[in-house]
Amino acid sequence: MANDETTVLRIDVASAIPVYRQIVDGLRALLVHGAFKPGDRLPTVRQMAVDLAVNHNTVAESYRLLAQEGWLELRRHHGATVLARKPLHAQPERHDDFAQRLRELAAQAISDGLDTGAVAKQLSCLASDLKRNAPL
Amino acid sequence: MANDETTVLRIDVASAIPVYRQIVDGLRALLVHGAFKPGDRLPTVRQMAVDLAVNHNTVAESYRLLAQEGWLELRRHHGATVLARKPLHAQPERHDDFAQRLRELAAQAISDGLDTGAVAKQLSCLASDLKRNAPL
Repeated sequence: MANDETTVLRIDVASAIPVYRQIVDGLRALLVHGAFKPGDRLPTVRQMAVDLAVNHNTVAESYRLLAQEGWLELRRHHGATVLARKPLHAQPERHDDFAQRLRELAAQAISDGLDTGAVAKQLSCLASDLKRNAPL
Repeated sequence: MANDETTVLRIDVASAIPVYRQIVDGLRALLVHGAFKPGDRLPTVRQMAVDLAVNHNTVAESYRLLAQEGWLELRRHHGATVLARKPLHAQPERHDDFAQRLRELAAQAISDGLDTGAVAKQLSCLASDLKRNAPL
């Protein structure tokens, strides 16, 4: 992974979202949109920890969670390799869960002072991007 | 708050999202869309804890966080009262933060097996709801 891609991961240590979760969410988005291909090696835990200026246990935990999701293979001394992951089929309740979290995320943004119209616009933009298969 | 509204809060104890955070996010969504008006009393911590079958410290923490955000006034023996909250003006970086979390939430749903088209549709639906000011 080139350094400019590493920097796509924005970590906010002041956020209420734990750092390991921010790393998981950010890397997963890169994996879903194909920024890494099966067989690619991720930076070592140590390197990623240095790049993001976080504890290496935090990065290790993030890699473990992505391995549990089937995105990575972890081998001692070999680091993390991206797997060819079979698409899953979501349970119906997963749709409701996504809809709920989406509403809550929008509500939080509005509560934080974003204009409702601006939030709606972001949602529409992402919907368009997904429809034309643009990188997330 | 009527009991049927209490049940709008869906708590998933198996989720990676801490329960106090789920309560905060769920209640905030109800507050943003106006399900509670300034002056309304929320159920007591004890009552909410019973309704949701969670520890009362968890509910107390959620109420504290919403009070910090300016949504609630907490008074000993008087419970939580909804405040008339002045709209905030978000910093520009808050827009980027929302856009990033939105992409990550969509990526997670797709990673969990939701169809990209279904995710796009949910995004469009919520955008339309916001534009016509429908309840979140």
